[in-house]
Amino acid sequence: MRIAIDAMGGDHAPKAVVEGALAAAKEWPDTSIILVGPEDTIRSLLPEMPSNLSIRHASEVVEAEDEPVKAVRRKKDSSMVVAGRLVKENEADAMISAGNTGALMATGLLIVGRMEGIERPALAPMIPTLDGKGVLALDLGANMDATPENLLQYAIMGSLYRKAVHGVAKPRVGLLNVGTEAAKGNELTKAAYPLLENAPIHFVGNVEARDVLRADCDVLVCDGFVGNILLKSLEGTAGAIFSVLKEEFTKSFLSKLAAAVLKPGLSSFKKKLDYKEHGGAPLLGLKGLVMKSHGSSDALAVKNGVRQTRLALEHNLVGAISAEIASRKGAE
Amino acid sequence: MRIAIDAMGGDHAPKAVVEGALAAAKEWPDTSIILVGPEDTIRSLLPEMPSNLSIRHASEVVEAEDEPVKAVRRKKDSSMVVAGRLVKENEADAMISAGNTGALMATGLLIVGRMEGIERPALAPMIPTLDGKGVLALDLGANMDATPENLLQYAIMGSLYRKAVHGVAKPRVGLLNVGTEAAKGNELTKAAYPLLENAPIHFVGNVEARDVLRADCDVLVCDGFVGNILLKSLEGTAGAIFSVLKEEFTKSFLSKLAAAVLKPGLSSFKKKLDYKEHGGAPLLGLKGLVMKSHGSSDALAVKNGVRQTRLALEHNLVGAISAEIASRKGAE
Repeated sequence: MRIAIDAMGGDHAPKAVVEGALAAAKEWPDTSIILVGPEDTIRSLLPEMPSNLSIRHASEVVEAEDEPVKAVRRKKDSSMVVAGRLVKENEADAMISAGNTGALMATGLLIVGRMEGIERPALAPMIPTLDGKGVLALDLGANMDATPENLLQYAIMGSLYRKAVHGVAKPRVGLLNVGTEAAKGNELTKAAYPLLENAPIHFVGNVEARDVLRADCDVLVCDGFVGNILLKSLEGTAGAIFSVLKEEFTKSFLSKLAAAVLKPGLSSFKKKLDYKEHGGAPLLGLKGLVMKSHGSSDALAVKNGVRQTRLALEHNLVGAISAEIASRKGAE
Repeated sequence: MRIAIDAMGGDHAPKAVVEGALAAAKEWPDTSIILVGPEDTIRSLLPEMPSNLSIRHASEVVEAEDEPVKAVRRKKDSSMVVAGRLVKENEADAMISAGNTGALMATGLLIVGRMEGIERPALAPMIPTLDGKGVLALDLGANMDATPENLLQYAIMGSLYRKAVHGVAKPRVGLLNVGTEAAKGNELTKAAYPLLENAPIHFVGNVEARDVLRADCDVLVCDGFVGNILLKSLEGTAGAIFSVLKEEFTKSFLSKLAAAVLKPGLSSFKKKLDYKEHGGAPLLGLKGLVMKSHGSSDALAVKNGVRQTRLALEHNLVGAISAEIASRKGAE
């Protein structure tokens, strides 16, 4: 399998990306890693060059503050766009980038292309849960508005991803809603509920926002607007509480002593709630595999991104989604 | 002014409600308090009977598990419905209930009646913030779906409430959204933004879910579905973190000692984040004033509910909303 990596994406690019790619190439000799970016820069960061590692030159860089669609249209020789083109032209099976999320979604749509039968590709990160396992939530911001049919496709794609990449045999799919009863919700969720009930997934019904952390499901389906509100509210609340804790911990000599006793347990808990610990997010519903790594990815995170991508490729995730969507189209 | 109180609503009814009503009657001799419920029961709980306290008999009770609309239609002699009728028939200026929220909203719509020009009355509780002041959020669950015009009316009603009841001279109104830029959001928020910009309110733009706790606004506008997701996610995250803290605090002898040092500071913080500390929620956009107290209200909370209701009446909140809505209709 061949994985293209955008060497210039992310806060610690290109150094962390190149280091992570090198580590991945050494760990998985059966995988061809193609680093995309300015050849000289990349080469200068590589102390060695395993035979399964190669460089594809790209002269431009999509910046974090670039307007997504404009960047993809204008910076045709950027590392991100060139990596997307490698997937489109079947020179790579997948691409990974830790760069500008909006631009990566635009690269997915405009360069790699939407899978036939899929109306809206979805971004699917893991939301942290108290058990440390996390729940795959989609859509998280690729599309603000969704139709019931969109939510059904999110559910199918999310299930197949959890099976392929995380080995969950029968992923429990929940619908983010305001109550557990079937009749609860807004027009969208009320219309989506029966579609999910009749889909080839393990639908466990509505999941309330307050129960998401308790990990009552493996896949959580929602529109991109609501998903953003959920995730940001979770992050904001956790962040605020931990910053107040920190204040309390440093108030006095005695509180510092007390904090020292409690810190180990709390740190491991805080880590569980840190979404950055939960790996990258696939962009599902494209003709090829596109993976988003966190902007703050270090070399280890880049290597872990390759690990996830390999699992998705090994299980032919894109083919499985395509087959499922096509069979549903045929059944209509 | 005359305030009808549903004596049978809430987890601690009728005892806590009667006690709170008595305390309110004694504190504010200019206010007539009408306790609505089974006369004998109420009388047996009253050690004294100030001249501004009276009882209006009602033989039935709306239970927490009753289906809202059905309960309001069938239990015509319930304490909640009778209190609503007192408002409608101008025998009371406002009503307060700590009972079934859905049934109270149905009482508001079916008994008290919608204000002319208002499409959707909204439930507006306070969401806790780190500064302890809270933000008035609406709609929180009265209507799952909203139009841009609904959001505009929520903004106007919420502003007038904050002025009247909390004395905020120029309430900052924020639109709950996925980013701060004007062009961000789903179809609803993108269409609502220009309406809010041109409204007679102090619109401060979009507010992200992660910033709600930081109290960047006094009034937060959203549809009922999204509002529920925000509030439940905030409660769920805070609850989960505090329960993990409790576990860490009781793990060992040493951690119990450490906890004892940190507890005072953390308890006051936890209290700030407890939405139950933030008083009741008005149901805005009705012909009369309807206030929802928390189901867990004790006598003090009931008395505080009367305090808020008095402020709203003193400032003629319903008249102010009606005038503002009518002037907008005229301008159209």
